[in-house]
Amino acid sequence: MGKIYGLGLGPGDLDLMSVKAHRLLTGAKHVAYFRKAGRKGQARKMVDSLLPEGVIEFPMEYPVTTEIPVTDPRYNEILSAFYAEVAAHLRTLVESGEDIVVLCEGDPFFYGSFMHLYTRLNEVVPVEVVPAITGMSGAWTATGQPITWGDDVLTVLMGTLEEKDLVRHMDDTDALVVMKIGRNFDKVVRALKVAGKFDDAWIVQFATMPNQSMCKLSEMTEKVTPYFSIIVVHGQGRRP
Amino acid sequence: MGKIYGLGLGPGDLDLMSVKAHRLLTGAKHVAYFRKAGRKGQARKMVDSLLPEGVIEFPMEYPVTTEIPVTDPRYNEILSAFYAEVAAHLRTLVESGEDIVVLCEGDPFFYGSFMHLYTRLNEVVPVEVVPAITGMSGAWTATGQPITWGDDVLTVLMGTLEEKDLVRHMDDTDALVVMKIGRNFDKVVRALKVAGKFDDAWIVQFATMPNQSMCKLSEMTEKVTPYFSIIVVHGQGRRP
Ligand SMILES: C[S@@+](CC[C@H](N)C(=O)[O-])C[C@H]1O[C@@H](n2cnc3c(N)ncnc32)[C@H](O)[C@@H]1O
Ligand SMILES: C[S@@+](CC[C@H](N)C(=O)[O-])C[C@H]1O[C@@H](n2cnc3c(N)ncnc32)[C@H](O)[C@@H]1O
Repeated sequence: MGKIYGLGLGPGDLDLMSVKAHRLLTGAKHVAYFRKAGRKGQARKMVDSLLPEGVIEFPMEYPVTTEIPVTDPRYNEILSAFYAEVAAHLRTLVESGEDIVVLCEGDPFFYGSFMHLYTRLNEVVPVEVVPAITGMSGAWTATGQPITWGDDVLTVLMGTLEEKDLVRHMDDTDALVVMKIGRNFDKVVRALKVAGKFDDAWIVQFATMPNQSMCKLSEMTEKVTPYFSIIVVHGQGRRP
Repeated sequence: MGKIYGLGLGPGDLDLMSVKAHRLLTGAKHVAYFRKAGRKGQARKMVDSLLPEGVIEFPMEYPVTTEIPVTDPRYNEILSAFYAEVAAHLRTLVESGEDIVVLCEGDPFFYGSFMHLYTRLNEVVPVEVVPAITGMSGAWTATGQPITWGDDVLTVLMGTLEEKDLVRHMDDTDALVVMKIGRNFDKVVRALKVAGKFDDAWIVQFATMPNQSMCKLSEMTEKVTPYFSIIVVHGQGRRP
């Protein structure tokens, strides 16, 4: 029996990958990764310079679901069938004795897609998760300001939440991280304004990557927010 | 001019240190670290096997404040004077051209003590912060269950908060992390019970370290919770 590694790559800068992840990746025979149809895949792109020669790639290409609303039961059915199918392929490989490295952006267990494979494989074949630096750690480090002090409360929110839920949580926290911004940008900005946190918010795009950029949200000039963007509001807790 | 590195070591397992941190540490000429009077220092102990021969150590020994309540203004004054003093020493070293690696448990900007030096030095001498895997990533990975799914809300709380604040935040979140437990253990347990999250809580001690242990909080038999312990409640969000 081989083993499946859910390999956390960290926020982007390969120098921030763990020693363990680096060793597993550069010694890999099989790598698998999610990607959107017709794309190269974010995680795959990240490790371009590190993949060993002759590595066997298994791109797990998401089914196209753009025409089905997330609330439609068919949406979940299609995704579920997709995860089952790729999990079955990985299982066959592992049972034939091969190790497989599954590339994960950031930390695999923190809002990662690998979790959908993990729950389908963990009780069937050997799976090991290698934790990693999260995108948010990369983002607050980029701002050059600590995220939390003393007994600050930190809340992590997804931009996909409803506006009223965003506002309620933003209202009752010291430090704040908002991820999955993309199309939810305007909603997130409105919620931050209602909660009185807009003026203190920073947005970091492509944290730790060569094209990293960052600014106060209130001073942002471009409109587009790429997939890799995070909003951060720093805590201001007790500090001697 | 030299440079000060706020070096995140990660949760404990040296194999989870970043490639960058590993390189800076094994090439260090000066290392500095906080410790309690009469102790070796947690961060220092962690890197025992990695420090290069001949490295010059600067232990920054906390003043003894056990007899002064945290609310007494003298408490803050004493700590503040201590941070100013060690910052002045680091500054002199850096200005004489030396690089200094300051050892930080987990991620330096996430509830770390290094932040107190950072704010005193960052505008005066070159300082670089190297992010790292947090203790909480180590802890939820140890539990073998993802911490957050879909649009789960994650709240991070310190055990030092007042009980009513703990309850309010525990009540209104999907996934939960509680740190700085130690003496606050009984209070945290009471709050978890009121919020109806006690039965789903896990406690992880010494995450990723050789003496790692973990169990459901409700099945915990020992009473003592060491400094390195984290309570985790997993989110149960949307999953196809
Ligand atoms: C599906 S979640 C995956 C999170 C990942 N597992 C982690 O530990 O950071 C995707 C979201 O992570 C955030 N993200 C991850 N890495 C990032 C980076 N380097 N810069 C900015 N945002 C990042 C973005 O908000 C993005 O929408
Ligand atoms: C002052 S905070 C420092 C947090 C650190 N900067 C980080 O990123 O995890 C200290 C708290 O971190 C938590 N902690 C850090 N590393 C841990 C580990 N390996 N296992 C369990 N708890 C840990 C404990 O709750 C402890 O009380």
